[in-house]
Amino acid sequence: MELIKQNSPVLFFFNQSKKWLAKISKKELLHTHIGIIKHADAIGKEYGSKLITNKDKYVYLLKPTMYDYIMKIQHGTQIVYPKDLGYIVARAGIQNNQKIVEIGTGSASLTSFVASIVKPRGHVYTFDVNENFMKIAAKNLKKCGMEKYVTQENLDIKTVKKVPITDADVAIIDLGDPWTVIPQVRQMLKGSGAVFAICPTMNQLEKLTMSLVENEFTDIESTEHILRTIEAREGKTRHSFQGIGHTTYLCFARKAFFDRKSRKKSKSKPKTEKRIPEKKATKTTKKTTKTTKTKKVKPSKSK
Amino acid sequence: MELIKQNSPVLFFFNQSKKWLAKISKKELLHTHIGIIKHADAIGKEYGSKLITNKDKYVYLLKPTMYDYIMKIQHGTQIVYPKDLGYIVARAGIQNNQKIVEIGTGSASLTSFVASIVKPRGHVYTFDVNENFMKIAAKNLKKCGMEKYVTQENLDIKTVKKVPITDADVAIIDLGDPWTVIPQVRQMLKGSGAVFAICPTMNQLEKLTMSLVENEFTDIESTEHILRTIEAREGKTRHSFQGIGHTTYLCFARKAFFDRKSRKKSKSKPKTEKRIPEKKATKTTKKTTKTTKTKKVKPSKSK
Amino acid sequence: MELIKQNSPVLFFFNQSKKWLAKISKKELLHTHIGIIKHADAIGKEYGSKLITNKDKYVYLLKPTMYDYIMKIQHGTQIVYPKDLGYIVARAGIQNNQKIVEIGTGSASLTSFVASIVKPRGHVYTFDVNENFMKIAAKNLKKCGMEKYVTQENLDIKTVKKVPITDADVAIIDLGDPWTVIPQVRQMLKGSGAVFAICPTMNQLEKLTMSLVENEFTDIESTEHILRTIEAREGKTRHSFQGIGHTTYLCFARKAFFDRKSRKKSKSKPKTEKRIPEKKATKTTKKTTKTTKTKKVKPSKSK
Amino acid sequence: MELIKQNSPVLFFFNQSKKWLAKISKKELLHTHIGIIKHADAIGKEYGSKLITNKDKYVYLLKPTMYDYIMKIQHGTQIVYPKDLGYIVARAGIQNNQKIVEIGTGSASLTSFVASIVKPRGHVYTFDVNENFMKIAAKNLKKCGMEKYVTQENLDIKTVKKVPITDADVAIIDLGDPWTVIPQVRQMLKGSGAVFAICPTMNQLEKLTMSLVENEFTDIESTEHILRTIEAREGKTRHSFQGIGHTTYLCFARKAFFDRKSRKKSKSKPKTEKRIPEKKATKTTKKTTKTTKTKKVKPSKSK
Repeated sequence: MELIKQNSPVLFFFNQSKKWLAKISKKELLHTHIGIIKHADAIGKEYGSKLITNKDKYVYLLKPTMYDYIMKIQHGTQIVYPKDLGYIVARAGIQNNQKIVEIGTGSASLTSFVASIVKPRGHVYTFDVNENFMKIAAKNLKKCGMEKYVTQENLDIKTVKKVPITDADVAIIDLGDPWTVIPQVRQMLKGSGAVFAICPTMNQLEKLTMSLVENEFTDIESTEHILRTIEAREGKTRHSFQGIGHTTYLCFARKAFFDRKSRKKSKSKPKTEKRIPEKKATKTTKKTTKTTKTKKVKPSKSK
Repeated sequence: MELIKQNSPVLFFFNQSKKWLAKISKKELLHTHIGIIKHADAIGKEYGSKLITNKDKYVYLLKPTMYDYIMKIQHGTQIVYPKDLGYIVARAGIQNNQKIVEIGTGSASLTSFVASIVKPRGHVYTFDVNENFMKIAAKNLKKCGMEKYVTQENLDIKTVKKVPITDADVAIIDLGDPWTVIPQVRQMLKGSGAVFAICPTMNQLEKLTMSLVENEFTDIESTEHILRTIEAREGKTRHSFQGIGHTTYLCFARKAFFDRKSRKKSKSKPKTEKRIPEKKATKTTKKTTKTTKTKKVKPSKSK
Repeated sequence: MELIKQNSPVLFFFNQSKKWLAKISKKELLHTHIGIIKHADAIGKEYGSKLITNKDKYVYLLKPTMYDYIMKIQHGTQIVYPKDLGYIVARAGIQNNQKIVEIGTGSASLTSFVASIVKPRGHVYTFDVNENFMKIAAKNLKKCGMEKYVTQENLDIKTVKKVPITDADVAIIDLGDPWTVIPQVRQMLKGSGAVFAICPTMNQLEKLTMSLVENEFTDIESTEHILRTIEAREGKTRHSFQGIGHTTYLCFARKAFFDRKSRKKSKSKPKTEKRIPEKKATKTTKKTTKTTKTKKVKPSKSK
Repeated sequence: MELIKQNSPVLFFFNQSKKWLAKISKKELLHTHIGIIKHADAIGKEYGSKLITNKDKYVYLLKPTMYDYIMKIQHGTQIVYPKDLGYIVARAGIQNNQKIVEIGTGSASLTSFVASIVKPRGHVYTFDVNENFMKIAAKNLKKCGMEKYVTQENLDIKTVKKVPITDADVAIIDLGDPWTVIPQVRQMLKGSGAVFAICPTMNQLEKLTMSLVENEFTDIESTEHILRTIEAREGKTRHSFQGIGHTTYLCFARKAFFDRKSRKKSKSKPKTEKRIPEKKATKTTKKTTKTTKTKKVKPSKSK
C-alpha cells in the first residue's frame, strides 16, 4: 500500500474539469472554488482516498499518471492529445529501450509521453530552436519526472551539416513545415524505422506525403482520430452534447530503400549537395543547453 | 545497421492490404498473387530493402512492429485495434515496470501490446476460461516474443475465492459481462489504480458504469474512437471512400475510497459475503504456470 | 430585383455567431456590439447589400431562409438541427403536397421546416399537451410564415380513443417515450408510410425498435449524423477546432403488413383493447383549431 | 387506401441490401436470389403488403420514395447521397416554388431530389456538356417522374457569353473545378441567393472558398457529413461494424454586395472582359435539348 507523504505528487480530483496537480508540501493550502485543500491532510493517506475541503466538498487523492501531467501542461504551445499520442505509440510500435528523435519539442507533451514508454533504457533526443519553448519544455519534463530520459538540444535540423543522431527507431516531427526535414530524418533513422508527423492542416499532409515518397518512405498513412465521449447512465445513455473538435492529423511512414544502387551512385548526390551531409554523421554537433557529453550517439540496442 | 538473417522476423510489405509476416527460413518460398518470394533472397539485406518476386513485383523487407503482429493475429476472437490500444495506454498511463491484470485474454492482441510497453520488468497476468482461446493466445504471444512477460492462467475471476494478484497498476477487462468482476478487480488494484474495459455495446457501458460507481471508482469515462484515413495526394486530398466502422467502446475508471470508515465496518461486509474473499489478498500466487489448474471452462467472451 | 421595404424580414449578418433576425420597422434601431443598426437604412436596398453601423462595421442584409429561422428559434425546448432535419426529409422522401403528422410539437423547429417543404398544398398536423410549448411553437410558426400550413392541437395521442388523422404520408415523433404511440402512429399512416422519431438516447432507439417490429414496421434504420465544419483557407485547410457535439439519434421505419389475415382476426385485438381504438379511424377531425379541447396537460418531452 | 395496379411503381423490399425497384407489369417475373417475384401477385394489394416468392421468402411492396430512386440510380457517375442532399436543402432553405440552377447534371440524383422539393411550380435548370451523362440523367429523371420539373441543357457555363438564367434562388455546382463558374453563378443568382458546391476534395474547398470571397459571397461554410448507422437491439445496441466512408464535402455561401459603387465602376470591368458578359443577362440563350419554349425566364415568385 502506497501512502502519500511530503513531496508526493498528487492529483486532487473533483471532476473531469476541476482537478489540480500538486506536490505535497506540509504547509501549503490550495484555494479552490470548492474550498481550501490542506496539503497536510493528505499526508499518510493511501492514494485513492478522500480529502474534505473546508467547504465540506471532497476531492480524491489520485496518483498522477502521464495523462494527468499532459492534460495540465503549461500550454505555451499546443499540446498533442492522448488520443493522438496513443495512436503514435501503437502504430509505430514504440516500446521501452528504443531511441527516439523528436524535431520540434514544443511544450514537451509528446516528449514526456514517449519518454515514459521508452524509459528506463531508451532515450528521447529532442530538438527545437525556440529558447522560450525549450525552457517551458524543460520545466514540464521535470514536473513529470522524465528529464533524465530526454536530451534537449537547441539545433535547427533543417540546416544542420551533420545529423546529430543516427540509428533511431522512430522520429517524430512537430513542425509547421515537416517536409523540410525529411532528408535529415531519413539519415537519423534505421532501415525500416518509422516517422510520425503532427500535421494540423490537410496541406501539410499533402506536402509531407510528396516529400516522403521522394525520400523513399513506404507504408505511408495519414489519419485523423476522433474521440467521442459517451455519457453512460441508466436508461439514458448517449454521446456527450459537448463535442470534441479537431486537434491534428497524423502522418506515418517507414524508411525503405527504393533502389539501393542508383541511389548511392547518382540520385542522392545532388540532394546531398543541397542539404545533407555526405557521410553518415558520426559526431553530434552540439550547442546543447542541457546535456552535452554525448560524443558519439550509439544506437540503442535493438531488440 | 541491422541485417536480416536466418530466423529474423520480416514483414514482406507490398501495400496496406497485401503484406505477409514471416520468420526467415533459408529454404522457404512464399507464394503470393504478386509472385514467389524467396526467403533466401532476404538474407544479408538491411531492413527496409527491396526484394523482387519472380513476377518482377517488389516487396519491402520491414522489421515487424507490435502493430504488424496485432494486425495479423489469428482472429479466433475479435482483436482490439491499435486506435483503441493506444488510447488505453495513453489514458491509463501504462508504462514499463507496471503490473497489469487482464481478465479475458481473447486472442492476446491487447495482452501483447500491453506487454510490449511494460516489459522488461513489468508483467501482465492474464486470465481466461476458454482453453481453445488460451492456446491461440499462447501461440500469438510467442510469435511476437512477448511470452516471457505474460503469465496466462485458466481461472474464472468471477467465482474466485481469493484474487490471485494484488497491487496491480492497471486492470483490463475484455468480457461480455465486465460488471460481474468489478469487486474482484477492485481487490486486485492499488489505490488510484486504473481499470479499462472493452465494451462493444452501449448496454455494457451502462451496466458497467453503474457497477463502477457502486464499487467506489471515480474519474469514470466512456469513449469511442473513430479513426479515419486520409488520402493525401497532390491537389486531391480527401478522406478515404472506404469507411472504418465500429470496433468497440472503452470504459475507464480509477479506484477510490468513497468512505473509508463505513466501508470497512458495515458496507463492504454483505458484499464480501456474496462474492468476494473477506480478507484482502495478501499474497500473490505467483507461480501460476501457463494454463494449469483449470477449475471451470466457460466461455468468457460472448459479444 | 427584390428590394427591402417596411416589414420585410431581414437577417443582419455579421458572421456565423453574430447575426440578428428582424422585421424592418422604419423607426427601429438595433443596438449591437458592433454598433447601432438603423432599420431605416435597409429600406430600398437589394437583399445581399451592406449596411454600415455607427461604429463603421458592416452587416449584410440577407433574406432569411428557413435555416435562419430555425437557428434563431426561441429555445424553450431543444430544437432539431438542420443536419437532422435534412436527413429526415431526404430519407422519408418528404415533398410538397404530403400530409404529415407530428407528435410532440416542441418549439416547432421541425414543424416549420417540414411545413416549408410540403406547402402550399400539403399540411402538417402537430400535437402536443404542453400549453406553454404550444404557445411558443405558435409564435415561432408565425414568425417564419408557416402558420397557415400547420394545424396545432392539444391532444395526448397516447390516450386518444380515435386517431385524429389517417392516411398520413409521414409521421414524426418527438417525445421522450416514442414507443408508446407507435400503435396510434400506425393507424394514422398510409400503407408503406414512413415514421421518423427523434431519439436523443440509445435506450430510446432500443425500445422504439422493439416496438416498431412488434407493430409491423419494416426498413427500420437508426442513424446518427455528425456535421463537421472545415476551415478552408489558402495553404492551411483543416477541420474546425471547435467540435459539434451530439444532438440526437434518428429512427426511421416504414409501415408494412406482416401477416394481413391473422392480424385482422386475432393478434390486433388484445393490443387494441389495451391502448388503441378498436375501429380504424375513418374521419379526420379536421377543424381542429389551435389548442382547443385540452384534455390533459402533461409535459410531452422529457429528454 | 392506395392499391397497386398495372404500371404502379413498387419497391420490392427484402432488406436494406436486397431490394428492387420496378414498374408493375402484369406478365413480368423478377428472378432474384430469394426466388421469383411475380408482378401479377402485387396487383390489387395495398402498399406495405407482403408478397411471397416461389421460394417462400417474402418481400414488402413499398411505395418508392425519392430516396429509393436515388439509391438505385444508374451509377454512370457518382451520386450525391441522401445525407448530403438533405443538408443542402436544409442549409440553403430550398422549398417549393423556387428557381434552381444546377451546373453539372451528372446522373441527376441531386437534380431529382431538388426537383421533388421545388415542384410543382418551382423548376430546376440543369446544365452539362457530356451528352452521355445527359442521356443517363434524362432517363433517371423520367424514372422518378421529375422530368417535367427539370430543364436539361447542353451548355458550358464556363464559356457562356450570356448566362441563360437569372434571379435563381439557389445554384448548385457539381463540377471538378467549381471555382471556374463562380462569376457566372453570381450573375444567375438573386441578391442573398445561395450557392452549394459538391467538393470531394479539400483542395476544391480551398480554391472555391478563395473564389467565393473574391466574387463577393458571404456566410461561406464548408462542411462534411458523417452518417453512422446504429444497430438497436435489445441489450446489445451499438454502432454498425460496417463503416460508411467519405462521399463529399460541401461548400455553401450566399451572394452579397461587398461594395456596390466601386464594384460597378472599376473592379468588375476587367473581370468581365476576361470571362463574364458585360451586361446582366436579360434573355436566355438556348440550345436546349429538351424544353425550348422559355423565352424569358421570369423570377419565380419569391415567398
